[in-house]
Amino acid sequence: MRFFSDNAAAACPEALAAISDANRIDMAYDGDGYSGRLNAAFSTLFETEVEALWVATGTAANSLALAALCPPHGGVVCHSDAHIQNDECGAPEFYTHGAKLMPIEGEGAKLTPDAVAAFLATVRKAVHWVQPAALSITNATEYGLVYTPDETAALGALCRERGLGFHIDGARFANALVHLGCAPADLTWRAGADALSFGFTKNGGLFAECLVFFNRELAAATRYRRKRAGHLLSKGRYLAGQLLAMIEGDVWLRNARLANEAAARLAAAAGTDRLTFPVQANELFVRVTADEAAALRVKGFDFYDWSPGEIRLVTSWDSEPAHVDALAAAIRAL
Amino acid sequence: MRFFSDNAAAACPEALAAISDANRIDMAYDGDGYSGRLNAAFSTLFETEVEALWVATGTAANSLALAALCPPHGGVVCHSDAHIQNDECGAPEFYTHGAKLMPIEGEGAKLTPDAVAAFLATVRKAVHWVQPAALSITNATEYGLVYTPDETAALGALCRERGLGFHIDGARFANALVHLGCAPADLTWRAGADALSFGFTKNGGLFAECLVFFNRELAAATRYRRKRAGHLLSKGRYLAGQLLAMIEGDVWLRNARLANEAAARLAAAAGTDRLTFPVQANELFVRVTADEAAALRVKGFDFYDWSPGEIRLVTSWDSEPAHVDALAAAIRAL
Amino acid sequence: MRFFSDNAAAACPEALAAISDANRIDMAYDGDGYSGRLNAAFSTLFETEVEALWVATGTAANSLALAALCPPHGGVVCHSDAHIQNDECGAPEFYTHGAKLMPIEGEGAKLTPDAVAAFLATVRKAVHWVQPAALSITNATEYGLVYTPDETAALGALCRERGLGFHIDGARFANALVHLGCAPADLTWRAGADALSFGFTKNGGLFAECLVFFNRELAAATRYRRKRAGHLLSKGRYLAGQLLAMIEGDVWLRNARLANEAAARLAAAAGTDRLTFPVQANELFVRVTADEAAALRVKGFDFYDWSPGEIRLVTSWDSEPAHVDALAAAIRAL
Amino acid sequence: MRFFSDNAAAACPEALAAISDANRIDMAYDGDGYSGRLNAAFSTLFETEVEALWVATGTAANSLALAALCPPHGGVVCHSDAHIQNDECGAPEFYTHGAKLMPIEGEGAKLTPDAVAAFLATVRKAVHWVQPAALSITNATEYGLVYTPDETAALGALCRERGLGFHIDGARFANALVHLGCAPADLTWRAGADALSFGFTKNGGLFAECLVFFNRELAAATRYRRKRAGHLLSKGRYLAGQLLAMIEGDVWLRNARLANEAAARLAAAAGTDRLTFPVQANELFVRVTADEAAALRVKGFDFYDWSPGEIRLVTSWDSEPAHVDALAAAIRAL
Repeated sequence: MRFFSDNAAAACPEALAAISDANRIDMAYDGDGYSGRLNAAFSTLFETEVEALWVATGTAANSLALAALCPPHGGVVCHSDAHIQNDECGAPEFYTHGAKLMPIEGEGAKLTPDAVAAFLATVRKAVHWVQPAALSITNATEYGLVYTPDETAALGALCRERGLGFHIDGARFANALVHLGCAPADLTWRAGADALSFGFTKNGGLFAECLVFFNRELAAATRYRRKRAGHLLSKGRYLAGQLLAMIEGDVWLRNARLANEAAARLAAAAGTDRLTFPVQANELFVRVTADEAAALRVKGFDFYDWSPGEIRLVTSWDSEPAHVDALAAAIRAL
Repeated sequence: MRFFSDNAAAACPEALAAISDANRIDMAYDGDGYSGRLNAAFSTLFETEVEALWVATGTAANSLALAALCPPHGGVVCHSDAHIQNDECGAPEFYTHGAKLMPIEGEGAKLTPDAVAAFLATVRKAVHWVQPAALSITNATEYGLVYTPDETAALGALCRERGLGFHIDGARFANALVHLGCAPADLTWRAGADALSFGFTKNGGLFAECLVFFNRELAAATRYRRKRAGHLLSKGRYLAGQLLAMIEGDVWLRNARLANEAAARLAAAAGTDRLTFPVQANELFVRVTADEAAALRVKGFDFYDWSPGEIRLVTSWDSEPAHVDALAAAIRAL
Repeated sequence: MRFFSDNAAAACPEALAAISDANRIDMAYDGDGYSGRLNAAFSTLFETEVEALWVATGTAANSLALAALCPPHGGVVCHSDAHIQNDECGAPEFYTHGAKLMPIEGEGAKLTPDAVAAFLATVRKAVHWVQPAALSITNATEYGLVYTPDETAALGALCRERGLGFHIDGARFANALVHLGCAPADLTWRAGADALSFGFTKNGGLFAECLVFFNRELAAATRYRRKRAGHLLSKGRYLAGQLLAMIEGDVWLRNARLANEAAARLAAAAGTDRLTFPVQANELFVRVTADEAAALRVKGFDFYDWSPGEIRLVTSWDSEPAHVDALAAAIRAL
Repeated sequence: MRFFSDNAAAACPEALAAISDANRIDMAYDGDGYSGRLNAAFSTLFETEVEALWVATGTAANSLALAALCPPHGGVVCHSDAHIQNDECGAPEFYTHGAKLMPIEGEGAKLTPDAVAAFLATVRKAVHWVQPAALSITNATEYGLVYTPDETAALGALCRERGLGFHIDGARFANALVHLGCAPADLTWRAGADALSFGFTKNGGLFAECLVFFNRELAAATRYRRKRAGHLLSKGRYLAGQLLAMIEGDVWLRNARLANEAAARLAAAAGTDRLTFPVQANELFVRVTADEAAALRVKGFDFYDWSPGEIRLVTSWDSEPAHVDALAAAIRAL
């Protein structure tokens, strides 16, 4: 009974069917019929004209976005727990040709306008110092917290004021969105975002992420950078097909709801005292002793130790209800 | 009736089935059971211990290989018609951090030891001049010609003598191999190759290439570089599964034979006078007038104009026999 | 008696005096009084507002200029004999983060609009192919030929039409200018140039080049890139002082005239039959047999063998008249 | 009366004389007689065979050293106050092609083996995480503190044990050395250092730093990288000459002593209560109120405000004794 990562989940039936549907001869790269519908489909979803590029991984989506927003001699402000800072083996530095990530602090991997502004105030404006060029946040955050539309918009306003590009790492964007119940636009361009790494792989795709540019001027160079990075798949239709299948039937929302609901059940079982943070998406950070963690493993539950005295549980669209119930009971029984 | 690229072909049933087989929870990235079998499977195939890394595109495989063989201040000798030089939007330069491709000439995109040696003789050994660090050849070449084991070994010997790494772009390695009927080892490590970009996508995969290191010391850093390039798919089992399915049942050889046989039938129809080069793999370059090309298109055949008075025809594992026969007849009727 | 390179010449008295003059405490980097006068001095010289940045080497000037004009995924069209292509160990690729140099041909290392346009016509507009972003020419060329204002303007017009940045490597700009007798503006911004690497080191400086931006918007980012490349000297006043001393008293023109006149005397001695190219600046390429070359060396003359049957002679501001006369006589005596 | 930076000081007579001495025709780049003596001169100084490369700036020396010690996908552990982290506009990231600086904490910008080991323990060994490849310390530190031979050796031992390269930023190496009175070898290779950025510019040179490789295998590629970075001056003899003039007559030690003694006199005047750190080299960090700082400025003293309630004073080889006395008196009078 695995609760270690939504990255490891199976693909949902609709995504899998899209692979079969796309299995016919068509133009190569992104010249196929599926890829050709992406801009329109995502523009509809976001209620504004966007440029939507498929890529196979979230790391590629994030790095291409940052390369579009930050020159090699610039800096990207982010949280010190951000995936781009910690878990991508320097991919942002590779794609940006050495831009500097500028990690700052905040509760639950969330940034506030005050924290960002305070950091910006420390950077002197002269050639000796790397100048911040972009802000990147993760929604939901690496600790499963959600930025509301207002919180996002406050950061977006600061970016506009200071001339920073604004990127959102949405590896779990769907989970944030269904928690909030708002429109995708409210969490993105209406809040000032230039680019979104819109994750589908953790949410039931096989290998499917969409890099969405609300600032559409950034897309043209990025299409060259995607090719140059070896990320323009020869048979892109398999990737585009997944995205369309998951967007067009609201499969992405259904999947995220399933994951969030499973997490909510576990959260209820754990109770607030055991939770490091409120559970808003599909990740739980639970305080347990080493003995308690061992006891859970003995019962057949897989998960990561996060820090001493803390474990991470991640649910996904395909978390089996029986497993979730069993884990909830096991937690209650601790 | 499409003969414009094997890149656009459908995936074969075995590759597609591998996707379904892999559609269950497993460890993420390359920690899954399929990925864990790659080294062994490819070591068996090549009759020596190799390191085998999946990647989603040939451009990524080539670029990662070159980055392993050439420092940023070095050069990669290749043919002026090489895919790495012409068709990858500078991906080798991106991955190598600016190494210089050093294109030289040769018939049918083939390089000879004499041509390589003659080029090397022009490079003075001092810091003002980029020093060649690697040789990259394509087998089968961009014009569908095949390097024999002896021809490959002669280049490999030169590389060893001059201290150059030796890379083979094998986007159509299968097609070369079935033409020659030799062992995979004869075209690679026995001939001195350090790394092979082993193509499966053009040969019936969905998105599946294998970067094979015969010089196994190069693999460790490349695993970091693959992650850093955003090419470590979260659910790598879908990719590893395809490779295993195509290798373990000799599907890759069957597919390449189908493509080569289709090309041979078209070549026979065209006759040597119309062919720019002998047809050894699955590509034909055929001399036709503009009127003749138009006539073929009127009959429903799709293909690329290659140069004035020359078209390119590419067959694939799924070229329908009826289409091939029809095209052969149409060519004979010109 | 050395005629192998103007790179090896001594510094002129005015440049040397500038070092002493600058030897007092002042603000560090480019905050000093000398550096502060550069923009004004070069704006006067060029009869338009420019941004003028000192750098210590021509390679740095060229590479910073190209990085300002070409993105990492773009290309720089240049002559196949260009210094940037052949003699800078890949510095342009380093500074541009892997942009592709696109060498084309032309007599005497000169490019024509027709040759450039013919090349551009071969580049298909799609993400698989590196798109040219800039043109770089060398004036005087690597073979000592000079682009006239009209020739330069024709290239500049083509650049504007095709959206290319236009860079001039002026390592021997002074030599070209005094040959033509025109205004500096005529060879640069009036002809459409965006940036000039204005060389002083070969012309009597110690270590002094000026990167002049006519397209002033390019300067701001370049100031950061200069720092980031370790080229912002702590005591920039020694460098700025040289530039001012050589510009403000027309020392640069005097020096170039001395070098050109010495070359002209040698050219007259050699006669047109022996010269590979007309002598317009301070370099001569002279056809001599191996025996003749040996005979010149026996008499004490140092120079480079250029190609079989051809030597290169370079004069400089400090070529001693007696040495020049002796060499002229020796050539006549061959 | 300027106490804001040793970067702004004048050059010493010996360095200036070296410029004049070198002002004659010689071979270009580093083929001249001065450059040819560098390895021998620095090998003598360090009592072991070294490779010594001149460069014009400390930023270039640091960055070239780090590029030799750390691959693009690796990390460089350093202090969060390190010059390479804060004051070089991302130059290390540029030269290493995007390696990640990994800043950690320590009093007075000094690192301890415990702090380094504690950091290393946090880095999991897998491809998602940038692996540390090198350690860089600054001696004297950015706060004017000195690592002793023992302290340095303890860090060097840790580096050897963990497979890290070991770089020392010695912008003020001379100041550290004269404070300690030990041999240059004791602070470098005997303590396990692979490379030293040996600063001369802050210590009385015009533009002169020496990148010293104790691990001599690193030098060959670095010579290419230096050229590729545009740091191979055409007339390197002016730079090599300065280094020789300052080494061969112990000018560098004399200059550092002068600076340190001036600092010591100011420190005595300030008293330990006002000093943030003990004064071991030529920098003082002094607690003063805003009014006190203003009072000092009114008397004609120039310096930087460092943090609220703290100013930085830097002495140099040419700090005029009268100015030092005056400042000491003024501080006493606060």
